[in-house]
Amino acid sequence: MNDRSTLDPEDWAAFRRDAHAALDAALDHVEGRAARPVWQPVPEPVKEALSAPLPDAPSDTPELISRMVGEIAAHDLGNLHPRFHGWVHGAGTPEALIPAMFEAALDANLGGREHAAVYVERQVIGWWRQIFDFPAGAGGLMVSGTSMATLLAMKAALTRHGGTALRDGGLAALPGPVAAYASQEAHGCVARAFDILGLGRGVLRRVPVDGEFRIRTDRLEAMIAADRAAGIAPLALIGTAGSVNTGAIDPLDRLAGIAAAEGLWFHVDGAFGAMARLAPTLAPRLAGIERADSIAFDFHKWLHVTYDAGMILIRDAGALRHAFADRPDYLAGAERGPAAGDPWFTEFGPELSRGFRALRVWYQMLRFGPARLGACIAANCAQAAHLARLVEAAPDLELMAPAPLNIVCLRYRAPDETAAEALNTAIVLALQERGLAVPSTTRIGGRLAIRVNLTNHRTRMADMDALAGDILRLGAELA
Amino acid sequence: MNDRSTLDPEDWAAFRRDAHAALDAALDHVEGRAARPVWQPVPEPVKEALSAPLPDAPSDTPELISRMVGEIAAHDLGNLHPRFHGWVHGAGTPEALIPAMFEAALDANLGGREHAAVYVERQVIGWWRQIFDFPAGAGGLMVSGTSMATLLAMKAALTRHGGTALRDGGLAALPGPVAAYASQEAHGCVARAFDILGLGRGVLRRVPVDGEFRIRTDRLEAMIAADRAAGIAPLALIGTAGSVNTGAIDPLDRLAGIAAAEGLWFHVDGAFGAMARLAPTLAPRLAGIERADSIAFDFHKWLHVTYDAGMILIRDAGALRHAFADRPDYLAGAERGPAAGDPWFTEFGPELSRGFRALRVWYQMLRFGPARLGACIAANCAQAAHLARLVEAAPDLELMAPAPLNIVCLRYRAPDETAAEALNTAIVLALQERGLAVPSTTRIGGRLAIRVNLTNHRTRMADMDALAGDILRLGAELA
Repeated sequence: MNDRSTLDPEDWAAFRRDAHAALDAALDHVEGRAARPVWQPVPEPVKEALSAPLPDAPSDTPELISRMVGEIAAHDLGNLHPRFHGWVHGAGTPEALIPAMFEAALDANLGGREHAAVYVERQVIGWWRQIFDFPAGAGGLMVSGTSMATLLAMKAALTRHGGTALRDGGLAALPGPVAAYASQEAHGCVARAFDILGLGRGVLRRVPVDGEFRIRTDRLEAMIAADRAAGIAPLALIGTAGSVNTGAIDPLDRLAGIAAAEGLWFHVDGAFGAMARLAPTLAPRLAGIERADSIAFDFHKWLHVTYDAGMILIRDAGALRHAFADRPDYLAGAERGPAAGDPWFTEFGPELSRGFRALRVWYQMLRFGPARLGACIAANCAQAAHLARLVEAAPDLELMAPAPLNIVCLRYRAPDETAAEALNTAIVLALQERGLAVPSTTRIGGRLAIRVNLTNHRTRMADMDALAGDILRLGAELA
Repeated sequence: MNDRSTLDPEDWAAFRRDAHAALDAALDHVEGRAARPVWQPVPEPVKEALSAPLPDAPSDTPELISRMVGEIAAHDLGNLHPRFHGWVHGAGTPEALIPAMFEAALDANLGGREHAAVYVERQVIGWWRQIFDFPAGAGGLMVSGTSMATLLAMKAALTRHGGTALRDGGLAALPGPVAAYASQEAHGCVARAFDILGLGRGVLRRVPVDGEFRIRTDRLEAMIAADRAAGIAPLALIGTAGSVNTGAIDPLDRLAGIAAAEGLWFHVDGAFGAMARLAPTLAPRLAGIERADSIAFDFHKWLHVTYDAGMILIRDAGALRHAFADRPDYLAGAERGPAAGDPWFTEFGPELSRGFRALRVWYQMLRFGPARLGACIAANCAQAAHLARLVEAAPDLELMAPAPLNIVCLRYRAPDETAAEALNTAIVLALQERGLAVPSTTRIGGRLAIRVNLTNHRTRMADMDALAGDILRLGAELA
């Protein structure tokens, strides 16, 4: 009876009771999260429990559920809370537990083969192809997020430029030096992609931005011309749809035109901003994104799908396959049977085993529909605009950058820069440590800013009033 | 009441009822899976439903549960079935639903910061550090699997060799050409890592193997010497702990000695084989793995954790951090508050947003304990040995390679190679399409083999007898 070489329950009925208790405990966490402080320090006893060596003896299911509730969930970061505004975090949904249960029950490997799960991922890719008005030959791949998506896109761009001779010969097979272009506000994952690909971050030209933190196309064109004159081949142009500091959106249509004229691969980093496409009032600001060669974006941010889940969408699916296709003997395809299903997803990226994160996106998009998901996004942008107005109306506060989308950078004014740095650092820490709200910080032109990011479907307009009030109160208290 | 800009339920009690129904449906799938055929084709109506455009109207939760059961789970690949022996798939566990629910409920981003989840990932890394007898300064990172782990390890090796000048300058900053070494049986992800890093697959020397498909160290040493003589700097040596074709384990201790003598980074690809460390009877075969500079391995294979989940373990955590650390302004750390928690995991790899896959591993290891997980692994190896004996005892069958671990390569004999190719292809397809069993195929010395992989805690010894019997019967029927 007690077969230790299987991991299935001996008593399924008892296990089901435990599993239902776990479900209620997990849902209790979500349902009750707003009533607790946004963030609290991790207590020392929890740190100790979570640094103990692996015990030899197994634990039973209820004990582990209790630990996940009392040690782990009780000391989360707070991103489910309406007043979490830090970095660019998704807020999750209780509905996410439904596909998560099936993801675990199926334990599907999306590397390829012939099973329904691969049709789900293809369908999700197809939906985003349509959302971005990409052509029928477009394709893509679910990835962990925009960092990986950017790496894959730049690998595809490099392969289109240098051909498959690069695969064996490496960068030494390139006909000559190359350069890529992105604004000074572009996300660090762009430079890192070139670092990983062996070109080095130095190939990425950082183009200055205008007063609204958008790439200056005049400077871009001058830099391209200078590179050409120096015998350097322009490879790729990266536009930003929603910069991480201020939410700025580059003039994508103009960039698309420049890329087309110059023969560059046009990539859009739309980590969170690309989701604005779902909001009819915001979508026009992304005009030109439909002309991109590739778009990288996340579902775990503004779509609130469980971490991690992103996508690379590629205008010419063949370019991605060209960069990665490589099937060893043990992964040979077949006309029929479970080894069928060509092309396999493994041919479009570096991973051979791939989780079923597509199910989370499939579920979220069907469950809520594009209009409601877009409404959540539009609501966050309205909240950002409201907060920006509150800041501008408060003499003690300074709006440090335009707030065109969902991010507001502000500070409490102080007599000098040293005082401002100390005071605003203290305000943010007080907000966080008192459990009131979690904004984060950044620097705008080198100056410290309180950064309020709104990718949270639980945040309400009143939370902006509360936040502005808290900052004013704390600024007076801590100055 | 009907606030369309939140994604939380209007009626929590009703949603809970739906969620409990989903849980039972998901568990029904796992509990009942063995009673169904291992694999069946995806029906055309399901393919059609899973290729429809995104509807505007939302779906309700019960409807989507019904679709996940009837369309997706009903047409899975079969890797939960005791008679699934294809490729190298994990078999999942019903217990995996427990951490999956918390993973979705928490929606944690493991990029860094100060919350309990990061302590969980650190603890899991620490456990594997101890399992592999790595020193206190060792570190690592949860990744999607061995392909990514290998990429990170080779990036760390490259950075150790060339210094951080590579970050901006790229491979052009290398002092000279480099080479790496792995056996001809090494997994394709090793060559692909060098392709992605811009060195090209050509830098990877493919060292011949002995009759048991293990790297020939005499040939390795000769190749290293030849490279040195040609002014090429040996960079890394990759040992295989469990080759994907036959389960061969390279002589890791000898490789460690060669790497130490030659100053090479010693990396072990232990995608599935490294897990044998948990089985006391098998662990001695991995002797020398504790001397590696890095080990790449998966939890979604032989540990049956939900896809995708792997790890890179690094002897010198600083080497990995050196290769990737790069914190932009908006990710600045702090002494206290939620921005504390240095070092952040983002500093050890390319991803800034990272899912909480560590929870799956944490749960699995605590729930079952290392001894029971090891017992499942040992049982699979005993099954492989049993099947190999059955094959050797059957005059119509040919054992095509030694079966030292958990993989058996065999074929039904035929008058000539053309006939053997056709017959064994037909046997595999018949096994699969009749829903009897799912082995896969590979090539051994260019010759097609039926490949039986045992990373399945539901497989029993009797399944090996049944498989051998089915192959003999089908061979006679289809010849």
